[in-house]
Amino acid sequence: MKVVVIGAGMVGSDVTGRLLAQGSISEIVLVDINQDKAEGEVMDYSHTTSYNYNPSASLEVGDYSDCQGADLIVLTAGPSIKEGQSRRDLALQNAQVTKEIMEQIIKYTTDALIIPVTNPVDVVTYTAVKSGYDRDKVIGTGTIVDSARLMRIIGNKYQLDPKNIFGYILGEHGKVSFVPWSIAGICGYDFETFAQIRGLDVELNKKKITKQVQQIGFDIWKKKGYTNHGIAAGVARIVKAISLDEEAVLPVSVYLDREYEIEGVALSVPCIIGEQGIEKILEFPLTKEELKKLEDAAKSLENTIKEIKV
Amino acid sequence: MKVVVIGAGMVGSDVTGRLLAQGSISEIVLVDINQDKAEGEVMDYSHTTSYNYNPSASLEVGDYSDCQGADLIVLTAGPSIKEGQSRRDLALQNAQVTKEIMEQIIKYTTDALIIPVTNPVDVVTYTAVKSGYDRDKVIGTGTIVDSARLMRIIGNKYQLDPKNIFGYILGEHGKVSFVPWSIAGICGYDFETFAQIRGLDVELNKKKITKQVQQIGFDIWKKKGYTNHGIAAGVARIVKAISLDEEAVLPVSVYLDREYEIEGVALSVPCIIGEQGIEKILEFPLTKEELKKLEDAAKSLENTIKEIKV
Amino acid sequence: MKVVVIGAGMVGSDVTGRLLAQGSISEIVLVDINQDKAEGEVMDYSHTTSYNYNPSASLEVGDYSDCQGADLIVLTAGPSIKEGQSRRDLALQNAQVTKEIMEQIIKYTTDALIIPVTNPVDVVTYTAVKSGYDRDKVIGTGTIVDSARLMRIIGNKYQLDPKNIFGYILGEHGKVSFVPWSIAGICGYDFETFAQIRGLDVELNKKKITKQVQQIGFDIWKKKGYTNHGIAAGVARIVKAISLDEEAVLPVSVYLDREYEIEGVALSVPCIIGEQGIEKILEFPLTKEELKKLEDAAKSLENTIKEIKV
Amino acid sequence: MKVVVIGAGMVGSDVTGRLLAQGSISEIVLVDINQDKAEGEVMDYSHTTSYNYNPSASLEVGDYSDCQGADLIVLTAGPSIKEGQSRRDLALQNAQVTKEIMEQIIKYTTDALIIPVTNPVDVVTYTAVKSGYDRDKVIGTGTIVDSARLMRIIGNKYQLDPKNIFGYILGEHGKVSFVPWSIAGICGYDFETFAQIRGLDVELNKKKITKQVQQIGFDIWKKKGYTNHGIAAGVARIVKAISLDEEAVLPVSVYLDREYEIEGVALSVPCIIGEQGIEKILEFPLTKEELKKLEDAAKSLENTIKEIKV
Repeated sequence: MKVVVIGAGMVGSDVTGRLLAQGSISEIVLVDINQDKAEGEVMDYSHTTSYNYNPSASLEVGDYSDCQGADLIVLTAGPSIKEGQSRRDLALQNAQVTKEIMEQIIKYTTDALIIPVTNPVDVVTYTAVKSGYDRDKVIGTGTIVDSARLMRIIGNKYQLDPKNIFGYILGEHGKVSFVPWSIAGICGYDFETFAQIRGLDVELNKKKITKQVQQIGFDIWKKKGYTNHGIAAGVARIVKAISLDEEAVLPVSVYLDREYEIEGVALSVPCIIGEQGIEKILEFPLTKEELKKLEDAAKSLENTIKEIKV
Repeated sequence: MKVVVIGAGMVGSDVTGRLLAQGSISEIVLVDINQDKAEGEVMDYSHTTSYNYNPSASLEVGDYSDCQGADLIVLTAGPSIKEGQSRRDLALQNAQVTKEIMEQIIKYTTDALIIPVTNPVDVVTYTAVKSGYDRDKVIGTGTIVDSARLMRIIGNKYQLDPKNIFGYILGEHGKVSFVPWSIAGICGYDFETFAQIRGLDVELNKKKITKQVQQIGFDIWKKKGYTNHGIAAGVARIVKAISLDEEAVLPVSVYLDREYEIEGVALSVPCIIGEQGIEKILEFPLTKEELKKLEDAAKSLENTIKEIKV
Repeated sequence: MKVVVIGAGMVGSDVTGRLLAQGSISEIVLVDINQDKAEGEVMDYSHTTSYNYNPSASLEVGDYSDCQGADLIVLTAGPSIKEGQSRRDLALQNAQVTKEIMEQIIKYTTDALIIPVTNPVDVVTYTAVKSGYDRDKVIGTGTIVDSARLMRIIGNKYQLDPKNIFGYILGEHGKVSFVPWSIAGICGYDFETFAQIRGLDVELNKKKITKQVQQIGFDIWKKKGYTNHGIAAGVARIVKAISLDEEAVLPVSVYLDREYEIEGVALSVPCIIGEQGIEKILEFPLTKEELKKLEDAAKSLENTIKEIKV
Repeated sequence: MKVVVIGAGMVGSDVTGRLLAQGSISEIVLVDINQDKAEGEVMDYSHTTSYNYNPSASLEVGDYSDCQGADLIVLTAGPSIKEGQSRRDLALQNAQVTKEIMEQIIKYTTDALIIPVTNPVDVVTYTAVKSGYDRDKVIGTGTIVDSARLMRIIGNKYQLDPKNIFGYILGEHGKVSFVPWSIAGICGYDFETFAQIRGLDVELNKKKITKQVQQIGFDIWKKKGYTNHGIAAGVARIVKAISLDEEAVLPVSVYLDREYEIEGVALSVPCIIGEQGIEKILEFPLTKEELKKLEDAAKSLENTIKEIKV
């Protein structure tokens, strides 16, 4: 399995480390306009392969021509948001960056699966598809990390391994998003019932938790200046689903074409992920209220797209 | 973390391999009345630690005195069922074996967690507790492997990673057991709804699947003469929950003392597992019908216990 | 990566488990003339994929037609040696078995790499090549496990992680084999010097240790009736080298064509293993005495081949 | 196993990620004077534990009092070198930082093993021991990462898995260091001989390679502004040796007390690492020239220590 990671910043660097550790990837190529940065990362990582227990995968600095024959391309390029910058400006900037990158990629392959990670990830996913790429092959990280955060926060509240929590954040990553609480729960029970079973006097303030999850990326950004570990782990989770052809259900950003009666934007809904990429977009029979929130997310994204005229 | 594995048969041998591979256990001692068998296994395994990527844990043949200072003791000793043998005879035989082993263990520790695996596992778990061991420290594998089978069978039907399926088998391992279908499902939906979402014309014959899962251990036994991989993976899952103090919800065999209004037998219900062992027995508000089945399982086990006069 | 494992006996079953655990293989097909045994193994293993932490690779029972498109085929079929059976008889039997299997395989692929494991592995490797398969694609496990045993035994003596020991067993697996002591050592020193450095009064009886390693497979066989864990770990080591394209130096059984002035037999010498299989047979400038032993191994194998008229 | 990581900068953050991934550590506490940074890292990482395959270890922000009961403390605090700053100034600064940290640690434990990582690591290791800590419990990362780099560079030259290369960098990390070429090699042969065996027209310019390795940390620093992945993997390697009680031979920075006739400085020589920490300092019978270089390293460190008056 050959992977090209575009962008050697905090996220691209962390993604590279997690893919190296997976042991299922034999070849990683790191591409960055800042050749020095890419070289620094490769030099720094490549020595780790000398240790026992660490896999000896090949890791090299490359350019877009390395996309030829790649199985997977991870898009992490483009600046992160800066103090004082508006989300719209970031969208404008990174849509442009993505367009240019996709033009390069398409010269060399239209077969590789593409995982957009750069923010705003839904706009970047949209742009990647609109650049002429098959939408089933473009899997934006979307709310996969928001969903992991949700599960961890609830897990902590109930003193439980978060793997026992079921729930998603759907919609627009980091902005107009929502939890479909109607289907969320623990061990098949709603949270109130489970609190009693668990014997804990816990109350789940759903509004507050939703807000907390929407905010948490921003909170981390405020505290450390960027986010990387959570999102890199999210990429690794998607790659595992692809490399093992798992047919795993994961909330990812996907270009919608009348699913949920939404058309022409990318946002996060649950999808089945396997070696073909997006193998199925799952249309959940959400409540009216939840569908309304999905629509709101779609509108928010449409507006952004219009404003920046991708 | 020091682990003693009692019994070097097909299951004990496979458990040893999985624990070696986990990389979180530095010392494993294998004990068997057939010293040769234990030595053969240790010789065979210990060479694998020379390979790159394989952890260099210490693995040795020992005796009961090695239980001193152990964090964990896995009970796999005792014969498997033989062609033509009744389950009652096996119960009688392995309850006796367990009693003798527990007498030995208690000489050296009452602090270690104990994982009974030998069949019938509920009788063996019962016997271990009745030998004078704290019930919170005795975690029978119970229906953990039946539950994994259930998830895999359903996963295959829906062409999904089984990690997306939620459901348990509860009750008596391999006999009077049942699926609490009222809480089982996929992504928060019941199976019928999910089939539509998935776009598959799949119908879940719940009676047939329950029977299939109850039978499957027997089917494997008929086909290969014993079962080992599934159950060894089940032990590894429990050990992971303990070693990482996960507080994971797992269906395991536990001695009940008025939970679910059942008293004086061990059977499988969902428990929270962490570094203390059974940290909480979860009393699910099951349907009347489901509770009746749990009661049936309890009665079946009471009868066995009476018959064999442990 | 698609792997076909031929033979679902103790070795084939263990190999399957290790490949499943590697997480780099998405598809394993198990083939056995005893369909029941293969089905039992697959049923037993496949449920383990439901657990968190365990990869959801696809595992199925198949037949030779599944070799089409396989990247790797592991040969473990054929009976093990029985009490009282001569090695020659086993050679005769398994050469025949291998011939038939290779005829089947060649119908479907000549591109897959083949790892012969069945004993006597050098005869089986020879037979596989002579069946019309490119010798660079046939990598017999040979003395890889003997070498691991050597390192572990020496490691124990010096109270050291065996990964620090350097040494091989070369020649015929389990019979006419030898350690090239002239290049073996610890941290660049010979064993005598290292004993002083380590501050241990250890003496390495080289003859005894060589004998012990040659015997150890037999000792394990006497103690537990078969060997599987060591050899399965050996296969896993080779597969890792292939899947990561490591270019690792490993002692494996390879068909020689004038290397070391030996022709027309397969025996174990150090080779560079990568995604192409045997990427280079390394001709070490061994001492005269060591070369003589390699020649002896070659003669022993020639004799066996003549006797059984493969 | 409980680990406290002091310092949540690029290195401390990366170390935390690798320890989380090892799966053998159940509890990690991150301590930083910049509470926000530590909290940001913990928030970012902790969500990753919600994913299947990722271990649910506990990760929290703490303070020095968490050293109580810790098995291991990793020192990564203190500023990195800045453009234009002299190494002496950095030494002065980080010796002071270390002194203060050690005073805090000693209030809570003198039992934990300590792994100094902060640069200049030899000065920091020295300071940690001089603060009143048992020298066998202080394992500086020293030249472990330089050595990995050496193996990778040589591995690349010979187109070989670096795990096949044997060699160390000894002495002062990143400055007065050397390769004991007299014992380095591949598969028991010196590099010249192996080049012939490998069939490659490769020449090893030993002076150039030594310089390259000494420079490489600086080169990475120039290219990306800091180094983290290599050193974090080095820490992970040491932790593995400790947690599995491997008795692995690793080049680490250790306080010398007449070994190699050097006294009162810490520098890197090969040591046996197990659960007790430095279990043995190995005194290699190096060549006169090599011993001279070790002496030079000792003198360089003595000078630094005198200058900064730790």
